[in-house]
Amino acid sequence: MFLVEGNKTIKEIPASTYRINEIFSVNPSDLILESQSITPISSAELKKISFLQHPKDSVAVCELKEESLLKETGVQLILDGIQDPGNLGTIIRLADWFGISQIICSDDTADFYNPKVIQASMGSFLRVNIVYQDLESYLAENTQPIIGTDMNGTSFYEYPFPKNFNLVLGNEGNGIRPEIEKLLTDKITVPRFGKSRATESLNVAMSAGIILGQIFKQK
Amino acid sequence: MFLVEGNKTIKEIPASTYRINEIFSVNPSDLILESQSITPISSAELKKISFLQHPKDSVAVCELKEESLLKETGVQLILDGIQDPGNLGTIIRLADWFGISQIICSDDTADFYNPKVIQASMGSFLRVNIVYQDLESYLAENTQPIIGTDMNGTSFYEYPFPKNFNLVLGNEGNGIRPEIEKLLTDKITVPRFGKSRATESLNVAMSAGIILGQIFKQK
Repeated sequence: MFLVEGNKTIKEIPASTYRINEIFSVNPSDLILESQSITPISSAELKKISFLQHPKDSVAVCELKEESLLKETGVQLILDGIQDPGNLGTIIRLADWFGISQIICSDDTADFYNPKVIQASMGSFLRVNIVYQDLESYLAENTQPIIGTDMNGTSFYEYPFPKNFNLVLGNEGNGIRPEIEKLLTDKITVPRFGKSRATESLNVAMSAGIILGQIFKQK
Repeated sequence: MFLVEGNKTIKEIPASTYRINEIFSVNPSDLILESQSITPISSAELKKISFLQHPKDSVAVCELKEESLLKETGVQLILDGIQDPGNLGTIIRLADWFGISQIICSDDTADFYNPKVIQASMGSFLRVNIVYQDLESYLAENTQPIIGTDMNGTSFYEYPFPKNFNLVLGNEGNGIRPEIEKLLTDKITVPRFGKSRATESLNVAMSAGIILGQIFKQK
């Protein structure tokens, strides 16, 4: 089971492939969901259940879903050891915004059922298929080009993106691990225009957003 | 006075226009700065001083700087009521990455000396001039085009950005306030490609990053 907080996201669950097991709400009448009983609770009780500093109106206990890998998804994201739950949530939200239907995560990427990830994804986890895989063997068998972000890559402004491909984003501190790096077809980067030092880098989710903005322009 | 944490950023201060008043470090020998004495402290003492959950090596107490408005800065960012310190820090880091030299904040934008902002900006606050202004009168007198981000704006992919302009980013919940909206020359947006609901929006810092990525391509 995992927890989804806030009426706004809870209302979107029935239209997704996730199932609600139980709902607790400080104001059940605000949350009309067919064939779903809601247990009224006090604000103090909500505060005890919630993972948020400022709990919202309701929490839904949902069932974990069996993972299933989609084939032929067009552009998909590959996460190689993303550790920060906020970054993972932001990347899921980005994927949803740009209509990317699948994210493949290395086994050591943060758990997307982590409450911080669910929260940061703002309901987008309901619309993006997220699968954990042994990345090395997954990518070895994948036929789409595999493009990685790397500080020493080609400027993404000049890179002719293919129609379908895998975009690999590496760990916040260490980047893409060597075993995965050797499977890359190409490396791209977001060039720096400012006077910040060569050791600075953009946050991984921000780089991904800037690159996706460009890719979807070309489409 | 305000606090800067971590040797990496502290080492960049002498090359900036900020002045260090005092440094406390658990390992002063790691932090050699000319003409700056460092007070050795224990990890327990650092934990008490630090605003971080996992304090780093050192903290520097720095002097607040007199604000001074730069003229003719090319592209500059205008923040209309950005509330979240993490968003403000991320926007400062973006400005630095793209070589934007000035950010104008409305008086009700989060304080950039807030430890969370300084932390999220990763040293970028040292290289970007940040000024708080009464936005309405500032923009009324400004001669550059004033472009605002708005869900109902033109797709930024199709918008011919002028060479120099002000890019206005609005409050996380309410967007750009009406008094500022009426001063806008144009409105732009990052179009959604996914199936997320019309009520969803990208985080303000992420929108800014995606738009800046495009602007600097055109340059």
